Amino acid sequence: MKKFEEKTIETSSIYDGKVISLRVDTVSLPDGNTSKRELIKHPGAVAIIPITKEGKIIFVEQYRKALEKSIIEIPAGKLEPGEAPEVTAVRELEEETGYTTNKLKKLGSFYTSPGFADELLHVYEADDIELLPERIAGDEDEFVELMELTLEEAEALVAEERIHDAKTMYALLHLRLKG
Amino acid sequence: MKKFEEKTIETSSIYDGKVISLRVDTVSLPDGNTSKRELIKHPGAVAIIPITKEGKIIFVEQYRKALEKSIIEIPAGKLEPGEAPEVTAVRELEEETGYTTNKLKKLGSFYTSPGFADELLHVYEADDIELLPERIAGDEDEFVELMELTLEEAEALVAEERIHDAKTMYALLHLRLKG
Repeated sequence: MKKFEEKTIETSSIYDGKVISLRVDTVSLPDGNTSKRELIKHPGAVAIIPITKEGKIIFVEQYRKALEKSIIEIPAGKLEPGEAPEVTAVRELEEETGYTTNKLKKLGSFYTSPGFADELLHVYEADDIELLPERIAGDEDEFVELMELTLEEAEALVAEERIHDAKTMYALLHLRLKG
Repeated sequence: MKKFEEKTIETSSIYDGKVISLRVDTVSLPDGNTSKRELIKHPGAVAIIPITKEGKIIFVEQYRKALEKSIIEIPAGKLEPGEAPEVTAVRELEEETGYTTNKLKKLGSFYTSPGFADELLHVYEADDIELLPERIAGDEDEFVELMELTLEEAEALVAEERIHDAKTMYALLHLRLKG
């Protein structure tokens, strides 16, 4: 759908980084006026809700430099160029948690912040996860600690703002609805 | 919590815009190595789930330049400097939909994309909304069209990817759970 389309008059590339890039577009608005749009390009990402045979959920705690604090999230990671999201999902699950699954189910996908970024996040549920015989090395600049929690324990961490991000809040509502 | 803290060695400001700013930090990792973090600063935002006396939900359709398409979302907007999120929520509801409420209930808040951005989104439910006697002008570069939908109609739009963003998907799960 192109309702209220904003046509690009001029594009200015500001930054091209290893994860994101930033450009500023001058756009023509539906009423003929012009405006500026600050736009982040992101490769897209996956998030996985890993559930053990005992019905516990695996979370990872990690430091988020953008927030200057560590929060507790479901495992997630960026898409590599040309990688199918399902492949990324199993890879990130294995790297971040040491578990694997052959029961990956897609729940949906959503743009995390469409006002300024094109990041599309694909969310999966991984049931009956199994521990790998040995750990696989992940990103060398990523440090995470695993937490195995019941849904009720995780919901209690929302109140403490230890769980505080969109994908994980979405995951908890999904699991609560599933019962 | 500061587990796995990444200490800033150097900060480089790349861009300072009207909505977002971008900086790149060189950080010291827990293992002593260094890495770069690309970080977006955002003022934070609110989103509102507006529900009519008849139990319908008000959505807005708008063009999202970052996605180069229009999607259907719950009303939302950025925090103005010094403005309390509750005040922003009522203002955005009034500007974007022409409705107001005196029954604003906070559902929670979450970081939209903690891997690279500090945007914190506060989500509210506005029950028993009432039409204002006349429309209030909103942002002059924002063009939105209202849609009044049942929960079932909105859920059907998820399958068509017309509803496709985190806050709106979260809102639908919340309403489904509420029953």
